[in-house]
Amino acid sequence: MIRITIIGSGNVAQHLIKAFSKSEVVEIVQVFSRKKEALASLVSFEKIVNNFDSFLEADLYIIAVSDNAISEVSKQLPFQNRVVVHTSGAASLDVLDAKNRKGVFYPLQTFSKNKEIDFSTIPMCLEAENTFDYRVLESVAKSISQAVYPINSDQRKALHVAAVFVNNFTNHLYQIGQEICKEHQVPFEVLKPLIQETAQKINTLAPADAQTGPAKRKDSTTIEAHLEYLTHENQKNIYKILTQSIQNNGKKL
Amino acid sequence: MIRITIIGSGNVAQHLIKAFSKSEVVEIVQVFSRKKEALASLVSFEKIVNNFDSFLEADLYIIAVSDNAISEVSKQLPFQNRVVVHTSGAASLDVLDAKNRKGVFYPLQTFSKNKEIDFSTIPMCLEAENTFDYRVLESVAKSISQAVYPINSDQRKALHVAAVFVNNFTNHLYQIGQEICKEHQVPFEVLKPLIQETAQKINTLAPADAQTGPAKRKDSTTIEAHLEYLTHENQKNIYKILTQSIQNNGKKL
Repeated sequence: MIRITIIGSGNVAQHLIKAFSKSEVVEIVQVFSRKKEALASLVSFEKIVNNFDSFLEADLYIIAVSDNAISEVSKQLPFQNRVVVHTSGAASLDVLDAKNRKGVFYPLQTFSKNKEIDFSTIPMCLEAENTFDYRVLESVAKSISQAVYPINSDQRKALHVAAVFVNNFTNHLYQIGQEICKEHQVPFEVLKPLIQETAQKINTLAPADAQTGPAKRKDSTTIEAHLEYLTHENQKNIYKILTQSIQNNGKKL
Repeated sequence: MIRITIIGSGNVAQHLIKAFSKSEVVEIVQVFSRKKEALASLVSFEKIVNNFDSFLEADLYIIAVSDNAISEVSKQLPFQNRVVVHTSGAASLDVLDAKNRKGVFYPLQTFSKNKEIDFSTIPMCLEAENTFDYRVLESVAKSISQAVYPINSDQRKALHVAAVFVNNFTNHLYQIGQEICKEHQVPFEVLKPLIQETAQKINTLAPADAQTGPAKRKDSTTIEAHLEYLTHENQKNIYKILTQSIQNNGKKL
């Protein structure tokens, strides 16, 4: 068994605890949480610690805290030369204190507290300073997911930026779609199958090949009519800039 | 049986022919296509006509041609006072010639030639000039789909504009995500589960409640770092305008 300690009690920490609890490769030694109660339903109470001096020896320490707290937490760890990783898509390997062997254990997914997640399909993006430590991370990751990738800090940064486009920005377009529906008394339900189909298409077609619509067809009559129809300046601006981008088809401007 | 004639041989026409062929409520009387061969695999050859004078009597004529041809086709029909509908999300009821009873039979979905579609979940948006004709359209629609909605021309316009945001623009964001991955040698595969999860979330959460990411958190350090990292001016502009829109959270500007 690979002995793991998790530091943090937020969404990522909780989802990892749940996933590791089912793993036959991993044993959770301890979980660090300032508020012990937050984790009481997930892990036996004696394993929850709220004091850095209570840490037992483990093969891997996973810091699952907010990005701006990673560095400080890693500095405060009262041991050295052990494997310490963070779970952030945005932070580089080097935010971790150099007294320990650094790594990254980044599950690329959006975690909501109230939504169960099937970890087995979540891409685990791993980075370590040497092959031996990487193999440990890989064993741990493979015990909960079938999709494990070596991703260095520059690649992870690219993924993080790309994820903002395909997740955060896409979700915002869903919101605009819903607002347009609401304004005109149309149930948003009607659009949901289209949203699912659009997402599923990328499993069989490259996005550039799947592109349809007035911008792609350069159908200026429809584009003008849509801009006329939209009442929010903000929506008009987004419509214009994305239409133009589709028409330029990824040319580097 | 409701007797139907379909005019057109494109994506929508072909998908409708396939769906109606399985329906026990509908009988395809004829299909009009300039090129008979295009439909030879879908419907028996003697039912395919390429001459407007060959039309037999039917309960419903479905014009499934490109938007700018609907008006002209409806004018050329050599009969009157029958039910004639188009399948367009963008065209109003009134593009149809007034000599027949007008209606709309709009399947709200993106149709690709090479991708099979399960019609049963496709929202069918129907409009007619009177209740009797609406009931005919409803019977036909319900024979192929479980999601049938009365949608008038203004509502359909709203849906069409909203669909551009949630389908065309979303797909373009997928393309940008792929380009960023490619530029930094990351497999786009890694992002696909996130894309699916983002789309599936709207089935349980309103988009505004599902919103995450640096814009939502007003995390200006990460936003600046991302803008610095992006090399395309076009991608930077889209990043900026969508970040701003998320931060203003749908306020009418």
